[in-house]
Amino acid sequence: MTLLSNGTNNGTSTDSRTDKTIGTVVPSYVLDAWWAPADDSGAQSVLDASTGAEVARVSSDGLDLAAVVAHARTVGQASLGELTFHQRAILLKKLGQYLGGVKEELYELSARTGATRYDSMVDIDGGIGVLFTLSSKGRREMPNSQVYIDGDVEALSRDGSFSGQHIYTRIPGVACQINAFNFPVWGMLEKLAPAFIAGVPTIVKPATPTGYVTEAVVRHILASGILPPGSLQLISGSARNLIDHLDYRDLVAFTGSAGTARTLKAHSNVVEGGVRFTSETDSLNAAILGPDAAAGTAEFDAYVASVVTEMTSKAGQKCTSIRRLIVPAGRRDQVVAAVSERMARRVTLGDPRTEGVTMGPLASTGQRDEVLASVARLIDGGGRIVMGSQDLPTGADPEGAFMAPILLAFHDPESPAVHEIEAFGPVASIIEYTDLDHAVALAARGGGSLVTTVATHHPDVARALVLGIAAHHGRVLMLDRVDARSSTGHGSPVPHLVHGGPGRAGGSEELGGIRSVLHHMQRTAIQGSPDMLTAITGEWHTGAAVQTGIHPFRKSLAELRVGDQTQGGPRVVTLADITAFAEDTGDKFYAHTDAEAAAANPFFPGIVAHGYLLVSWAAGLFVDAAPGPVLANSGLEKLRFVTPVSPGDSIRVTLTAKRITPRETDEYGEVCWDAVLHNQNDEVVATYDVLTLVAKE
Amino acid sequence: MTLLSNGTNNGTSTDSRTDKTIGTVVPSYVLDAWWAPADDSGAQSVLDASTGAEVARVSSDGLDLAAVVAHARTVGQASLGELTFHQRAILLKKLGQYLGGVKEELYELSARTGATRYDSMVDIDGGIGVLFTLSSKGRREMPNSQVYIDGDVEALSRDGSFSGQHIYTRIPGVACQINAFNFPVWGMLEKLAPAFIAGVPTIVKPATPTGYVTEAVVRHILASGILPPGSLQLISGSARNLIDHLDYRDLVAFTGSAGTARTLKAHSNVVEGGVRFTSETDSLNAAILGPDAAAGTAEFDAYVASVVTEMTSKAGQKCTSIRRLIVPAGRRDQVVAAVSERMARRVTLGDPRTEGVTMGPLASTGQRDEVLASVARLIDGGGRIVMGSQDLPTGADPEGAFMAPILLAFHDPESPAVHEIEAFGPVASIIEYTDLDHAVALAARGGGSLVTTVATHHPDVARALVLGIAAHHGRVLMLDRVDARSSTGHGSPVPHLVHGGPGRAGGSEELGGIRSVLHHMQRTAIQGSPDMLTAITGEWHTGAAVQTGIHPFRKSLAELRVGDQTQGGPRVVTLADITAFAEDTGDKFYAHTDAEAAAANPFFPGIVAHGYLLVSWAAGLFVDAAPGPVLANSGLEKLRFVTPVSPGDSIRVTLTAKRITPRETDEYGEVCWDAVLHNQNDEVVATYDVLTLVAKE
Repeated sequence: MTLLSNGTNNGTSTDSRTDKTIGTVVPSYVLDAWWAPADDSGAQSVLDASTGAEVARVSSDGLDLAAVVAHARTVGQASLGELTFHQRAILLKKLGQYLGGVKEELYELSARTGATRYDSMVDIDGGIGVLFTLSSKGRREMPNSQVYIDGDVEALSRDGSFSGQHIYTRIPGVACQINAFNFPVWGMLEKLAPAFIAGVPTIVKPATPTGYVTEAVVRHILASGILPPGSLQLISGSARNLIDHLDYRDLVAFTGSAGTARTLKAHSNVVEGGVRFTSETDSLNAAILGPDAAAGTAEFDAYVASVVTEMTSKAGQKCTSIRRLIVPAGRRDQVVAAVSERMARRVTLGDPRTEGVTMGPLASTGQRDEVLASVARLIDGGGRIVMGSQDLPTGADPEGAFMAPILLAFHDPESPAVHEIEAFGPVASIIEYTDLDHAVALAARGGGSLVTTVATHHPDVARALVLGIAAHHGRVLMLDRVDARSSTGHGSPVPHLVHGGPGRAGGSEELGGIRSVLHHMQRTAIQGSPDMLTAITGEWHTGAAVQTGIHPFRKSLAELRVGDQTQGGPRVVTLADITAFAEDTGDKFYAHTDAEAAAANPFFPGIVAHGYLLVSWAAGLFVDAAPGPVLANSGLEKLRFVTPVSPGDSIRVTLTAKRITPRETDEYGEVCWDAVLHNQNDEVVATYDVLTLVAKE
Repeated sequence: MTLLSNGTNNGTSTDSRTDKTIGTVVPSYVLDAWWAPADDSGAQSVLDASTGAEVARVSSDGLDLAAVVAHARTVGQASLGELTFHQRAILLKKLGQYLGGVKEELYELSARTGATRYDSMVDIDGGIGVLFTLSSKGRREMPNSQVYIDGDVEALSRDGSFSGQHIYTRIPGVACQINAFNFPVWGMLEKLAPAFIAGVPTIVKPATPTGYVTEAVVRHILASGILPPGSLQLISGSARNLIDHLDYRDLVAFTGSAGTARTLKAHSNVVEGGVRFTSETDSLNAAILGPDAAAGTAEFDAYVASVVTEMTSKAGQKCTSIRRLIVPAGRRDQVVAAVSERMARRVTLGDPRTEGVTMGPLASTGQRDEVLASVARLIDGGGRIVMGSQDLPTGADPEGAFMAPILLAFHDPESPAVHEIEAFGPVASIIEYTDLDHAVALAARGGGSLVTTVATHHPDVARALVLGIAAHHGRVLMLDRVDARSSTGHGSPVPHLVHGGPGRAGGSEELGGIRSVLHHMQRTAIQGSPDMLTAITGEWHTGAAVQTGIHPFRKSLAELRVGDQTQGGPRVVTLADITAFAEDTGDKFYAHTDAEAAAANPFFPGIVAHGYLLVSWAAGLFVDAAPGPVLANSGLEKLRFVTPVSPGDSIRVTLTAKRITPRETDEYGEVCWDAVLHNQNDEVVATYDVLTLVAKE
């Protein structure tokens, strides 16, 4: 680790925001207007992490939080309620594009929090990335409507007159996010995106020390004019009694310390009032070195690199940072040496605005003092510093929150301290395990974690370790020679996958693609007749009313309705047809070609038609061949062959428009058709969904 | 309502259980042995609901609850850990069959709680039904392994070397169920079944007043010898400090009063310790009469019948009972008259052991006193009795807990009392709404409910009401002329659909098919290279190692491994092939037959091959035709056509064994194959999963 001195560029001169917010109080944005306290005498001062200079003052004194909640529930719900999932998702994509154009300004502001360029990328580009990923997934994986259908229809009567269907509809309140100081941009956007797609308005409460960065993003979001009224409000400063105004219609998503989470979770509006509460709290994440990952292997090198990255990026102030190195007995000194060597070679500590700096200060001197106090407790608990020091790094600005990365070794891997005391900075501990069961038990001693890395290239080791620890974790990353370079990293939640973990990690889930959208919705089981279920879900249910007449392939999306139906057939299948199909396709499977062998098959009476013949013929029976709005067959789902078809049997097909999904940004959309084949005895031969692309006009 | 006098059969003489448990204390079953307190002087007395005679005494004084929890976590986790999802599901089916053979004895016992034959059926047959349904769903919808795969693989790198996959693994602790008095059998079995399939051991804590029925079921379960050691324990009597011994590895599923739920939810082991806590509490469920459901319609009649059933079955002691009748302005008197008429005609109150009785007493006189106190509060709050009376029904045994059904009318539909005071007995209130928005607002005033019935046959009314109230409910039942007879009823949760609700209803979910199994598991995002993901999930991931050589169609399930692969092709597609296929199948869609029109299509360069031709040919390229272990093509999933195939192009196919699911009770199982078609430029033409049935040997 190298230290660069401060002062070549201390940042305040490069600020591009208006003077208005410097020196005065960071404003809130509520009821679709900016707001600042009438009396800012109680405002809290926020300092530059590297220089100690005042950056901002913060206060929410006098803010009418009941009005803020009411605004979200009325204006926010109403404006978002006018849009479909896809329309909301498109707005998020536009927002991502807009913010991408202003991010340099955000980088400059972010540097004041102690963030290096790389740290800021994780926060700012990472946050914008969530907008793009969820926008894309929202459009690909959700319908273009306001009701999300969950799972298959459940038959509840023999005659088909009564069935059940699970649906999700948005919660009828507000999503309040209470965020941590370490990711002022990502923290807001990763929670805003799923709430927004669900159609739920958001109140953002950033952490006071870095809330001025969040405020800048909100300012840009408003300037973009992209979000509808009431969908986003910002409380700069204390959330005060916000939760007093919430009930079961609302959601609180908290990220931060376990202590604060506990206070919020014990609030009577959560315990009695039914406020939906999720928390994501710091945890003692581990990195397990597999027994096969000896020094010199790609897995060993990747492990060491990951440890150094996680200890130093964001100066170790990440809820996902590696806190516990769990290595095979006898390997500790090798790992310590390799981590120390890489740390010395690759890490340069200093003011992030200085060229060449790769690790910044902590967020504040108070934060550093807390981390150093935790280091002292770790030493009291049996830890011994084997890399780094508690002293102020030589040459560091004493007004800045600088500290050196520290690695502690514990002789006794069962020491409670190593599994319970979290130093929220560039601090980790190393312990040794005797066998795989022991490694699993040690990882589980964290009492529930966000993420553990397992470095191994051996499938059996991977299986034993990962399945052993999975239930204690929200995420497990397997590091090997194959993914060492392409991995997104131990410390980085990705929007496609869930982020969270049981127990100490908060017991909740965020992200995970549209799973995060559904967390902002209520699942309800709907029971009823096919016509009523069709009315509610917007999808045609078997048994519901149909419309015949004009062939539905002649209808554009503007004209097509669910329940539009065509029928085709019957067509008799002969042995000659089956034989010819076998010859033409080359599919001479014995059930289609050898009468004796076919009859010996437990499922067939003798020679039967190919399933592929049946669906190919069915297309011939339902298709309307002339050019028209139906553009292409894009796929097929859920095909099941139910009754075999023998020579002499006939088939007929019924095709019904089931689900219609116009695209927001194309001149066409998807239509999913319910297809059923029957034989001459009205037995069901096959069922499937046909996917097509159909023009809007 | 008619009243039959008691005494023709007061029940104690027909008891078929051993004398041991009568008069003495109902035992607990812990650490795989029966247990009773050494000193039962503090035991609580439980009385027959109709006669007031003592039925049982209950005490858990001195029970070592820490040992009970430890036994589940060790012995229970170990014995269940030896089984797959399917193996556990099969045991549940066997258990259901066994209990079906002893249910007459349970009926007799159940009658002492005040349950009529019909009430007992709901409890006993309903509980057994959950075993069958979840057993069936567990085998059809889960793999035959111990890892459940959630959703699709998520690509996280461009080169395919790093991906993510969500999995579920069982929680590493114990599922504690704390049940309500009203369903001593169903309550236990509906919670046991999903925990058991997940592989999580259960501790049952029934409600003291009816726990003797639960104890009888446990006695039979043990006699069956079906469940493995440690998988089921029973605490008869107070749960005392059970929750003190739990942490984030464990789950508490509570059913009962909101007050008790609150106490448990506020426990530090829930708030801080991360115990997974779900609650299902009584709620003020509504039944909305649609404006179209005028007197004389089938919907009106079905509505009235449902109200009478819900008020009287289990003497109204159901968390799902209808408490609030919400009817159009001006219809109140019609509804009251119709309900009163049907009540008089169809309901006979008395000792359930007496022939002809259709409504029993409440569970205890204490319970009745509580209900009558709530009725008094409803009257204080503006209610007026329009059917029934608070007086002891004429001729009823004063030692029994009899009371008449009571309907109250509120002039002011906004009266807080009607939306907040729950009388947990045969009591409901009626209010009027002005328009659909008003009806939605009134239903929502319940602050979160388990279920509401909407009686309408009009799609627009259904849509407005159901989508308006859905987010406030766990279930909504639409009653119309079509499903009036086939409906499973307002008050009956079905195992296929979720049971629970937001806010006052407890804010949780039970049942819902395998959703309930997953509630006993932890979702974890796993990241890694294809080989490592394959090792963890047991499913082949694209890019993972493959085995070639022997054609995989020649391998039985005993020999086949995921990753076994065959390739076929290339085969050139000519225009003549396409034309012939169009002729043979009748699928003359213009993209396959009309060069000019095809070229005008936005997706095609000109004439292209039918998708069905491609998959039919692919089968010809990958099939091994001779008789062997592959028995049938049972279906196809996730087919997507990616790149069109023009005349002159060629296709080749790669088929890889992806997922292998042997059946427990058949000589074969499912194999899902990953199929990919490429063209001569190595572009992906189509991807899909082929489903086959393959013999075990």
